[in-house]
Amino acid sequence: MDKYTITIGREYGSGGRLIGRQLAQELGIAFYDRELIVMAARESGFDEGFVQQMEQKRTISFISNLYLIGYELPVSEQIFLAQSKVIQKVAEESSCVIVGRCADYVLRDKPNCIRIFIHAPMEERIKRVREVYGEDKPNLEDYIRKQDKNRAAYYNYYTQNKWGRAQNYHLCIDSSIGIPASVRIIKELVTEFTKR
Amino acid sequence: MDKYTITIGREYGSGGRLIGRQLAQELGIAFYDRELIVMAARESGFDEGFVQQMEQKRTISFISNLYLIGYELPVSEQIFLAQSKVIQKVAEESSCVIVGRCADYVLRDKPNCIRIFIHAPMEERIKRVREVYGEDKPNLEDYIRKQDKNRAAYYNYYTQNKWGRAQNYHLCIDSSIGIPASVRIIKELVTEFTKR
Repeated sequence: MDKYTITIGREYGSGGRLIGRQLAQELGIAFYDRELIVMAARESGFDEGFVQQMEQKRTISFISNLYLIGYELPVSEQIFLAQSKVIQKVAEESSCVIVGRCADYVLRDKPNCIRIFIHAPMEERIKRVREVYGEDKPNLEDYIRKQDKNRAAYYNYYTQNKWGRAQNYHLCIDSSIGIPASVRIIKELVTEFTKR
Repeated sequence: MDKYTITIGREYGSGGRLIGRQLAQELGIAFYDRELIVMAARESGFDEGFVQQMEQKRTISFISNLYLIGYELPVSEQIFLAQSKVIQKVAEESSCVIVGRCADYVLRDKPNCIRIFIHAPMEERIKRVREVYGEDKPNLEDYIRKQDKNRAAYYNYYTQNKWGRAQNYHLCIDSSIGIPASVRIIKELVTEFTKR
């Protein structure tokens, strides 16, 4: 297999981004996450800060902000389309890891796209969000559940799939086994895939 | 880690049973699948053939056969309870692989239970069901979907979980990567687990 893309969907606080970055580093391929926002912002002609703001509050409710600035498509959908174009472009260019942004769905017709989903038990995620992300909100569990709800709503709205449904992914893994172990297991899958 | 159990949930035709058997063989541990039915039959005092028949038509609708033979619990629930006892007993005795029968839920309080879910794209499953299981029904896709529907209904009825929801399992894998490769990846996870 020539160029390949690894897409990573992940629960909030599961360490999915860390795993993706580590994976990209060990495989010697590109890594895209927030970088995509910047690129998509440029692509869509929107202000970078504005795209970032839309990203942060991405919930189904923002869909009601229709025709916000008088464009033909709702702003959120224009941003999604711009991001999708960027995802297709970077996946064409070289092998890479892409975190979030429904990349698995955007690249659904590419046979060389390896779809991963990372999750972890709530207590592990609370610990990571507190200790690694430095969040000190009083009710972290509610906060984490809300982030997941937003991610699921965003994914389910833009794709025909269901976020976190095992059958949508080649591999789903509980990262409580540890970041290095998760990376090793995903690499094993990638090796099998690239052998094809 | 001392004794451990690997539970395998699987889509019909995904090769989950094959993977489970191979895994047990390579790890040198016990393997339980249909054997459980026989043991559960003995445990419950029911005729073995009758238990098998109930197993085969396990759908939510059979729950309506309440008090079929005048016992206090519906027959299907008595069989489920008997199977659960057998699962707990064999998991206590030695390390093993258990396929199906909601074993992940039955052993939910055991920290040394590794929960796996196996799935595969429909075309792969049609091929396996035709070529390996020797099924020659005219509409295999409908037949496969019906088997999955029954498994999901059975699982969702007896557990508080949702069949095939990634977060219920430590690892979910698309077996279209091949049986030996799937076994290798699951073994990697087991190695990490047993290191703890």
